[in-house]
Amino acid sequence: MRAEIITIGDELLIGQVVDTNSAWMAERLNEVGIELYQITSVHDDAAHIKDALDEAFSRADIVFTTGGLGPTKDDITKHVLCEYFGSHLIVDLRVRAHIEDLYKDRPDVLNRLTATQWLVPACAEILENRVGSAPLMVFHHGNQLLASMPGVPYEMKIAMEEQILPYIQSQITTAQPIGRNPKSQILHRTLQVTGIPESALAILLENFENSMPEGLHLAYLPKDGIIRLRLSSYGELTEAQVQQWFDELKRLTTDYMIAETGDPLEVLVGKILTERHQTIATAESCTGGKLASLLSKHPGSSAFYYGSIISYDNSVKTHLLDVPEEIIKTHGVVSEEVVIKMANAVRKQLNTDFTIATSGIAGPSGGSLEKPVGTVWIAWATPNGTSAECFHLGKLREQVTDRACQKALVGLLKRI
Amino acid sequence: MRAEIITIGDELLIGQVVDTNSAWMAERLNEVGIELYQITSVHDDAAHIKDALDEAFSRADIVFTTGGLGPTKDDITKHVLCEYFGSHLIVDLRVRAHIEDLYKDRPDVLNRLTATQWLVPACAEILENRVGSAPLMVFHHGNQLLASMPGVPYEMKIAMEEQILPYIQSQITTAQPIGRNPKSQILHRTLQVTGIPESALAILLENFENSMPEGLHLAYLPKDGIIRLRLSSYGELTEAQVQQWFDELKRLTTDYMIAETGDPLEVLVGKILTERHQTIATAESCTGGKLASLLSKHPGSSAFYYGSIISYDNSVKTHLLDVPEEIIKTHGVVSEEVVIKMANAVRKQLNTDFTIATSGIAGPSGGSLEKPVGTVWIAWATPNGTSAECFHLGKLREQVTDRACQKALVGLLKRI
Repeated sequence: MRAEIITIGDELLIGQVVDTNSAWMAERLNEVGIELYQITSVHDDAAHIKDALDEAFSRADIVFTTGGLGPTKDDITKHVLCEYFGSHLIVDLRVRAHIEDLYKDRPDVLNRLTATQWLVPACAEILENRVGSAPLMVFHHGNQLLASMPGVPYEMKIAMEEQILPYIQSQITTAQPIGRNPKSQILHRTLQVTGIPESALAILLENFENSMPEGLHLAYLPKDGIIRLRLSSYGELTEAQVQQWFDELKRLTTDYMIAETGDPLEVLVGKILTERHQTIATAESCTGGKLASLLSKHPGSSAFYYGSIISYDNSVKTHLLDVPEEIIKTHGVVSEEVVIKMANAVRKQLNTDFTIATSGIAGPSGGSLEKPVGTVWIAWATPNGTSAECFHLGKLREQVTDRACQKALVGLLKRI
Repeated sequence: MRAEIITIGDELLIGQVVDTNSAWMAERLNEVGIELYQITSVHDDAAHIKDALDEAFSRADIVFTTGGLGPTKDDITKHVLCEYFGSHLIVDLRVRAHIEDLYKDRPDVLNRLTATQWLVPACAEILENRVGSAPLMVFHHGNQLLASMPGVPYEMKIAMEEQILPYIQSQITTAQPIGRNPKSQILHRTLQVTGIPESALAILLENFENSMPEGLHLAYLPKDGIIRLRLSSYGELTEAQVQQWFDELKRLTTDYMIAETGDPLEVLVGKILTERHQTIATAESCTGGKLASLLSKHPGSSAFYYGSIISYDNSVKTHLLDVPEEIIKTHGVVSEEVVIKMANAVRKQLNTDFTIATSGIAGPSGGSLEKPVGTVWIAWATPNGTSAECFHLGKLREQVTDRACQKALVGLLKRI
């Protein structure tokens, strides 16, 4: 079963919006065993959309489109699909009732433009968009399917989970897949390593890769100082067989492995702390709240994450984090002495089991010969004492703070 | 001059990586007057890559590819391009010297796999990749060009800015563009409004839109409670003419306009505060550091952003933010009384001109009938006093915290 995604919207092609929908959809499709072959981003332009539809239908069983379903003039997807499938628009009374109910307290939304949202192509099956006014449309194209969803990420996700995926799964038995062997399972297993260059890792794994059977594939995904190693099986291998290969991969990389899954490090930290009923706080300077934001990102984080003192300005370090001005003067604000003080102070103040403190030069300005942009000190305070490390994390502001967060989490994982 | 982007990598099609490169490249291309027609994401698969190249060359003057240039086995882009252009690999001594210099202190990186990075297609022009080992390759295909870059965002950005874009601009005079009229300028102007539904805004702007000349286009981009209105000119209009239309758009939307540019709100806040030598701090509960992270994201933020007290756990609110337990018991932690205390306390402690405090229920758990998931109280403390507002921001965790940050910044912009 092979799918393609077409994302529709000028905003994608002038860089005003990053397409986060496709990655989310890709992950879900892979999870339910549907191979995603291609993602195509096109303009809000009828001819362009139709060309992309022709091409996608020449390769895939299912085509997903996102975007272009708003009530405004620049959104044309519904009209183009209507034309493409040779249909015409009709009023859908169920959609109308839903929209009138959705906005019953918002007379300013229930206007004549919103009313165009309950016009739908006569040939389409309409699924319920619980959270918005754009109808979810499914079109049959011979044995192939097209599902059209809004581009707003929250709406798309709910549509996909609650309506589109269940619908597609109910159809799979009848459709004739043109992709890879439908009997074969897609299986992905990922682990994470750090402290070894990608090329050295590939040399370490050369024999392993050369002995892999047909249909098994190893991918290297380096990011922010961590390499994710993904073992993918598109063949006839059973789950147990893939697990055997994955076990061997773990054995070979054991000296560098920091996680046996591809989960973000903050999720792994959260799982361990929650299980042990332990807590964490941060004292951040250069990372400016990014680490706090990661630790509080996922549901359930209030079980282990207590809070942070973000001391972007030095006055906050001296007033709230007990860093004596003397120490800043002598050693500089980016120093082992300062981050250790910060980590200890926040641990005392917030009364948590663990803390992490960061201080560094994110750039573009503020660097010196001795401490160039990218220099970051990180300290970890634990029930067994406090220690710190110095890192050099590159030259670009975002890169420096992203990598600092990853280093902070890797260092924590080693210490808990 | 028309371009397309092909992003290469299985990780994009299984959802392991969000493609942020394309939006960045799209923005830069538009800025230099190159129209981006399509973005296509394909697998690390020779046949798939070649098909995508054929299709892109049938539509565009310039094709950019990113990804697949690492030294490991799963990266095949260089080999595929070499074959596609009927060439063969040769040693490039300049690339070799560069790589040997880049890793002179890293003998673990200078191994035989890294050595394959200085093999390049004989027919390609090689530009310098200052920060990595993957060669930047430019191929000539009749009057068309292909530029191949690494997929690592930091490397791609430096490559594009320092090498690829200057190279392309030096070639533009000789190439024969097949896209839109090369004499026409691409101009984008954006403003931001809030407090009006998208459909009501479109009705308000109906006459305006109907009277726009050929080549002028208005797009609505709603996100997190804010609508960006983008006026794009692909035609023969001069900058002054586009400005006239934009001025009229500003006049029509004046009651809802919060910004005359498309800049992120935290950038606008930063500009105003820096100009006035004023400062800000935050006290965050439900946003967990996201607001701090936004305020410290951009270069120069240390001029106005002092820091934050993130009180995810209630103990932090009572100990560090002077919120009496009694108030939490009586009014609940998500209440006007609590956020006002938080905003005032952090203003006093960090000694800034402005502060923002947030407390809400991000979900998925923690909601009640009286205060459902999505309820967020936000307070702003200013030299003229402290005030608070209550918002209902949806049902999904990420949506709630993203929208809360935008509401917090909109509220601040109204108060400074």
